[in-house]
Amino acid sequence: MYRSNTCGELRASHIGSEVILSGWVHKLRDKGFVAWVDLRDRYGITQLVFDEERTSKELLEQARELGRETVIQAKGQVIERASKNPNIPTGEIEVLVTELTILNKSLLPPFTIEDDTDGGEDIRMKYRYLDIRRNPVKNNLIFRHRVSMEVRKYLSDQGFIDVETPYLIKSTPEGARDFVVPSRMNEGQFYALPQSPQTFKQLLMVGGMDKYFQIVKCFRDEDLRADRQPEFTQIDCEMAFVEQEDILNTFEGLTKHLLKEIKGVDIQEFPRMTYDDAMRLYGNDKPDIRFGMQFGELNAVAQHKDFNVFNTAELVVGIAVPGASEYTRKEIDALIDWVKRPQVGAKGMVYVKCNEDGSYKSSVDKFYDEQDLAKWAEVTGAKPGDLICVLSGDANVTRAQLSALRMELATRLGLRKPNEFAPLWVVDFPLLELDEETGTYHAMHHPFTSPKPGQLKLLETNPGAVKANAYDLVLNGNEIGGGSIRIHDKETQATMFKHLGFTPEEAKAQFGFLMDAFQYGAPPHGGIAFGLDRLVSILGGQETIRDFIAFPKNNSGRDVMIDAPATINKEQLDELNISLANNT
Amino acid sequence: MYRSNTCGELRASHIGSEVILSGWVHKLRDKGFVAWVDLRDRYGITQLVFDEERTSKELLEQARELGRETVIQAKGQVIERASKNPNIPTGEIEVLVTELTILNKSLLPPFTIEDDTDGGEDIRMKYRYLDIRRNPVKNNLIFRHRVSMEVRKYLSDQGFIDVETPYLIKSTPEGARDFVVPSRMNEGQFYALPQSPQTFKQLLMVGGMDKYFQIVKCFRDEDLRADRQPEFTQIDCEMAFVEQEDILNTFEGLTKHLLKEIKGVDIQEFPRMTYDDAMRLYGNDKPDIRFGMQFGELNAVAQHKDFNVFNTAELVVGIAVPGASEYTRKEIDALIDWVKRPQVGAKGMVYVKCNEDGSYKSSVDKFYDEQDLAKWAEVTGAKPGDLICVLSGDANVTRAQLSALRMELATRLGLRKPNEFAPLWVVDFPLLELDEETGTYHAMHHPFTSPKPGQLKLLETNPGAVKANAYDLVLNGNEIGGGSIRIHDKETQATMFKHLGFTPEEAKAQFGFLMDAFQYGAPPHGGIAFGLDRLVSILGGQETIRDFIAFPKNNSGRDVMIDAPATINKEQLDELNISLANNT
Repeated sequence: MYRSNTCGELRASHIGSEVILSGWVHKLRDKGFVAWVDLRDRYGITQLVFDEERTSKELLEQARELGRETVIQAKGQVIERASKNPNIPTGEIEVLVTELTILNKSLLPPFTIEDDTDGGEDIRMKYRYLDIRRNPVKNNLIFRHRVSMEVRKYLSDQGFIDVETPYLIKSTPEGARDFVVPSRMNEGQFYALPQSPQTFKQLLMVGGMDKYFQIVKCFRDEDLRADRQPEFTQIDCEMAFVEQEDILNTFEGLTKHLLKEIKGVDIQEFPRMTYDDAMRLYGNDKPDIRFGMQFGELNAVAQHKDFNVFNTAELVVGIAVPGASEYTRKEIDALIDWVKRPQVGAKGMVYVKCNEDGSYKSSVDKFYDEQDLAKWAEVTGAKPGDLICVLSGDANVTRAQLSALRMELATRLGLRKPNEFAPLWVVDFPLLELDEETGTYHAMHHPFTSPKPGQLKLLETNPGAVKANAYDLVLNGNEIGGGSIRIHDKETQATMFKHLGFTPEEAKAQFGFLMDAFQYGAPPHGGIAFGLDRLVSILGGQETIRDFIAFPKNNSGRDVMIDAPATINKEQLDELNISLANNT
Repeated sequence: MYRSNTCGELRASHIGSEVILSGWVHKLRDKGFVAWVDLRDRYGITQLVFDEERTSKELLEQARELGRETVIQAKGQVIERASKNPNIPTGEIEVLVTELTILNKSLLPPFTIEDDTDGGEDIRMKYRYLDIRRNPVKNNLIFRHRVSMEVRKYLSDQGFIDVETPYLIKSTPEGARDFVVPSRMNEGQFYALPQSPQTFKQLLMVGGMDKYFQIVKCFRDEDLRADRQPEFTQIDCEMAFVEQEDILNTFEGLTKHLLKEIKGVDIQEFPRMTYDDAMRLYGNDKPDIRFGMQFGELNAVAQHKDFNVFNTAELVVGIAVPGASEYTRKEIDALIDWVKRPQVGAKGMVYVKCNEDGSYKSSVDKFYDEQDLAKWAEVTGAKPGDLICVLSGDANVTRAQLSALRMELATRLGLRKPNEFAPLWVVDFPLLELDEETGTYHAMHHPFTSPKPGQLKLLETNPGAVKANAYDLVLNGNEIGGGSIRIHDKETQATMFKHLGFTPEEAKAQFGFLMDAFQYGAPPHGGIAFGLDRLVSILGGQETIRDFIAFPKNNSGRDVMIDAPATINKEQLDELNISLANNT
């Protein structure tokens, strides 16, 4: 037996017990005639004491040699600690060691195993197994486990069935790029790794399995942005005989359950907002509503003066930044520089200081008098002490820019509180999205999303105006889930494929099995998928999903710890009947 | 709202309620003036009644047109059924329909949606979404869900943390063939899909996450035997600071919990048997101990007579088949033909009838008298009424043949009862296995398995004799789980790799990260993995794992429903920098 107790377990009530502990040497304090070792395991830290008088000189000498991260087993007696440490649960006791065994030695770790480590991101990733010993990473992984367990418990209790769908499926050119897997047994053919189990969960609905869920890995071979991973985890769900309302209620229930069980936060009904309103009021389909700063459209009150920049703009739109009227000239200039950065791309920014005395001071005083500016304040909801920031230009572009500014200012003002949770349903998404480059439409959610009842005809005349029974669940400015009511009849699905540019042959080759299935009594159905990595990181009050993934990949899709991907040998290539295109 | 109740829910207590049901038309009985529809969903069947007097002639006519598997919604009143059906839970009531909506039509399914369908395996796989509507398949999937949930609950309650390990890892030539995934971002390089998360779970132990589990897909590109799948699911577990005994106890606990919760079967302590004993007594490292027929080695009592076949054999070994002494000459000849089939490969079989009167009659009476045969009976444990079957030849081969015969006879005699459960730990597996063809040794479990303490030196002199702290959990003659105590220091691991034929460079290239990790305080650790597909099928009392997989692949690794794998287009190949070897 390696241990009788963990290093997080012993309390004053254990005093007098003989115990065996195993763990890592976290710290050694050596006073010559006595030495203390902080012994660490997953559960905590317990202080071991070695004392030449009470035990033996040899044991003390052995202890004094212990290097950091050495794995040891210690037998001894739990005794009361002279100077108690109220900061840790085991702080009232220590273990007077009578027997010490070194289980494994350790080289000096390349970074300290502390909450605030001295290791940078790269080195921590290379030695991720050491990084996981640190409380922040370890606790994130345990936190993720708790969230997964609660999700499964809740959904199972609601009658959902966890069904495993295949990982070796078929490549579809639609959507993101697939990872593919050459088949040895089927020469010249490839499997694809699923971007999501979308078609399989729909087939389960056709199969009558009317409540399905799965926590499942999905794969997308995309150029990785800072916080994207080539493999990611989805809470994938589907229901049959449901309308949008049933789905929103069910998964609002799940999210409330998680907030309650995991964070102790009670949230009543989640607000809902249409996609159009979200874009109009926040310039964003995933608004963070933990704070205000809603957009005020100023065209009516700011155009038709002599300020040509506004007069020629499609949209003039502003936000009131609370308590920012005291910003100095320098601070405001910095803000203007910020919106002009290429990542934001605004040409400039007009501002209005709403002074505490009720007067206004703007960067466009030449064109607008106090009365004009009072109207701006009214439209943006600015109060004395606020700063109104105004952008103008093409409507979509300007909204995106102002949204970026709104988020940046909220972050600077500390309004994005990690332990405040503001969920929001965004509904009535457009069915299609125009690709500005190619001039063609593609599915905003995915090609299986149902248009709103009665809007199918509109596809012919005004595709961009067709709305879908599609919805996102937004939490603190992040999309944590999204889904839709699906098409469940063959004709509508064929129409959709046609509008997405598939020839009937292509549609049949790719999705023939699904359209076939729709002919055999497909029930009305719909679903949702949550990004678990994102959900967990937001619930954990943190920004980056990587901190909640045990073995993440870097921005080049590499696992730097195991050094993958890697070359494979010629025999493997030959067996798979493939060769490298640039043979050298 | 599509339904107020499910089709499995309504009872006599609901009589008088107005309800809405949705589901599939399972059956229609049409008497002209009245028609009954069995409406089916996941939860059961409810009888709908359409009656020209009590409702309307139009509604009745509509109902009479309903084809099988049409999806309908029916509103109506729950009424008492005239002729009750005690065979189904809803048999006391029916719903008098007042409103009928057809939600989706159905073509005539290619096979009947009945427990005993008329559809063969191939057609059911092609239309798996219809197959899943059938109770046997549906219930298997729900059963699997229950098992998975219980596994997770039990392990989580025991402090295990579900950690997701990556799917895009590195290819290792050791063991079975990998599926590989070309990397677009890392030209000429490949990921591999994991054959198991073995190294990652060991790294988690190094990382201090001392109890890990995961229900995870694993991948092996092997030529598929009848009941193998290229992707399969593992309950993967690892613990640190444990000895073999701790692991056996923990997972005996899990298995008992499953047997109790899922099957209502209470099993006390699981028996244990060494690998050597299993081979000696059952000719098999996964003996089915639901029944006896242990091997009796007859060399001492059957050799040195004039029967040359036995005299020249390395092993003469027999089993007593209970109650089979009455087998006719024809039946015994059939048995001899059975053992001579190429799949078994015996040259012949000697038998002894142990007559009820205490006399013996054998196929080798010429060489052995009654006194000799009495000794055979003693060694094999044969009683009057039994038939002793004896095979001889090379020890390993003969044991395998007799094991096959033992299993076949047990099946014929009905001794392999699907609802009887006989777990068994097989322990002390050899560390290495000799590849007869190449004359080299390879790891019996995997290259990370630790030799028994003190046996490392033996690797140099007698590698085949080295035993490992490796164990299998056997249930009803199937290996449902297997694992080992791992090596946790760099030197031993390097020694192992050397004995497995790795050069130091190869070992470093493949497993350098693991050996590096072992230098930073790796704790003693070990683990186990269960094959979930197999476990579920055995608990379900069935033979084939395919029946417990939602979307299985066939023996060529194809998904015949979605028609995968498939060709991919040239653009995809180009982006991945690969080409097909046999360009046409």
